[in-house]
Amino acid sequence: MLLSILYIIGITAEAMTGALSAGRRQMDWFGVMLVASATAIGGGTVRDILLGHYPLGWVKNPEFLMITCIAGIFTTIAAKWIIKFKGVFIRLDALGLVVFSIIGTNVALDMGLHPLICMVSALVTGVFGGLLRDLICRQTPLVLHQELYASVALVASGMYLILLELGISNVIATVSTIIVGYLMRMAAVRFKWRLPSFHLEAEGSIH
Amino acid sequence: MLLSILYIIGITAEAMTGALSAGRRQMDWFGVMLVASATAIGGGTVRDILLGHYPLGWVKNPEFLMITCIAGIFTTIAAKWIIKFKGVFIRLDALGLVVFSIIGTNVALDMGLHPLICMVSALVTGVFGGLLRDLICRQTPLVLHQELYASVALVASGMYLILLELGISNVIATVSTIIVGYLMRMAAVRFKWRLPSFHLEAEGSIH
Amino acid sequence: MLLSILYIIGITAEAMTGALSAGRRQMDWFGVMLVASATAIGGGTVRDILLGHYPLGWVKNPEFLMITCIAGIFTTIAAKWIIKFKGVFIRLDALGLVVFSIIGTNVALDMGLHPLICMVSALVTGVFGGLLRDLICRQTPLVLHQELYASVALVASGMYLILLELGISNVIATVSTIIVGYLMRMAAVRFKWRLPSFHLEAEGSIH
Repeated sequence: MLLSILYIIGITAEAMTGALSAGRRQMDWFGVMLVASATAIGGGTVRDILLGHYPLGWVKNPEFLMITCIAGIFTTIAAKWIIKFKGVFIRLDALGLVVFSIIGTNVALDMGLHPLICMVSALVTGVFGGLLRDLICRQTPLVLHQELYASVALVASGMYLILLELGISNVIATVSTIIVGYLMRMAAVRFKWRLPSFHLEAEGSIH
Repeated sequence: MLLSILYIIGITAEAMTGALSAGRRQMDWFGVMLVASATAIGGGTVRDILLGHYPLGWVKNPEFLMITCIAGIFTTIAAKWIIKFKGVFIRLDALGLVVFSIIGTNVALDMGLHPLICMVSALVTGVFGGLLRDLICRQTPLVLHQELYASVALVASGMYLILLELGISNVIATVSTIIVGYLMRMAAVRFKWRLPSFHLEAEGSIH
Repeated sequence: MLLSILYIIGITAEAMTGALSAGRRQMDWFGVMLVASATAIGGGTVRDILLGHYPLGWVKNPEFLMITCIAGIFTTIAAKWIIKFKGVFIRLDALGLVVFSIIGTNVALDMGLHPLICMVSALVTGVFGGLLRDLICRQTPLVLHQELYASVALVASGMYLILLELGISNVIATVSTIIVGYLMRMAAVRFKWRLPSFHLEAEGSIH
């Protein structure tokens, strides 16, 4: 229940960030709705395709798709106002990331998959929406550069799995994972924590 | 039957537009066949993957794949001649768009899905081939900018669903949808009808 | 058995080429692991999704994913040393291409699919990993330009199918296909054999 409410908040916020990217590419309303929806529900879609988990969430519940399209179009109208709330979006995005990760973990758990695959499922759910957004809008994918984004998904998923394994109730595991994951992401943004990155000169090709 | 013939005309024309894009990127014959096939049958493929509708059309009927590959290679030989018939291609593309939309609607209808998902199915079938072409050829996706392209798929699908709902026979619903959709698309091209687009300055980022 | 060992060598080598591409884009460790894994096991993943062949290989055997992630991270440490062994990688890549093609052919054969689809399955397994790498790293896809890459996958798959059809044992068919495919690819690299390519001026648009 809590997770459902947070999920809807999460896809709405993600759809808005997608719509803003579409706007920077001068897309039309269809493009805005496409990028908004891909950002918000693309991660879950890729996860379900990889795991063979049919029907997809939005095919079963078309209202999720309606929410992301409406959020996208609303953004085209209210963009100037939305941009002022940058801080709110960073918080909602952090919340969405952790919620998506827990949902992704649960989907793989329910299919009886290996814990490592549960963590990959969390990662894909949390990260691939933004990756799709950046591919369609032809931006260098932010999640491959940004402050601990994918890592938060993995840590949240791992912590949630361990808590469940320890016999802790689902509600408590969910709430504590949300709190820890959210704080970790916000700290990563504030203190610019990053994974080490790998720089190679262009001549480093072995093709 | 009519729909099958129109479908083959549609994928042939789409394969040729894909091959021309590949030629502008100096691809080799394999690249040409890949882009031709992705343009022509990529929309149906993405739709079937999203809906979990297996086996895919071209896996079941490999002759469709042969048609798109042959059309692609033929284009490399006859490109100079083909380009002169720009007007013919715009018409065939309009026809293909509506035919793909009706086929996409039917696939989702046969799976018992929600009308909204039937329309999304039409949209994906009609639009994603061109989107894949532009992603592989690293062009800004035309369907996100162009004169009412996605909208024609949605209107055609919605009209077809309403006609069937009203108890009108499938043949009449199909033919009238093709006529209306085709005329709408041709009018959009001629009069440069566009959806409103969403322009945002680069600094409008909330990442 | 032989095929399994060669497969592991193949995905390790491919993961390293993927990691080097990620390094040229200054990605962080997560990006490195993502690109390494997409390069190494992306082809098989796309194949399985297209054929509806679930569960995916790495979902069933998460150790494959661990191998590609470790190979990716190892590459970030040992990049300077790896780049010196360019010749070894070209050989391993050639070997991997043929091994991936035979595996792809076998997957489609076991599903009872048409020989043409078996060849497409080989092609997708052999080629799409590199295609995904280049799409994520925003490079012009090498496989669409390079010396007989896709063609080797098709020839290897066709030869393997014909040998099986002639009643030759699987082991002999596999080994002879690996030898012929490997030599064909190495000859293509050395003598710069290429498919004819298709050059079209930018104004050749029919959009």
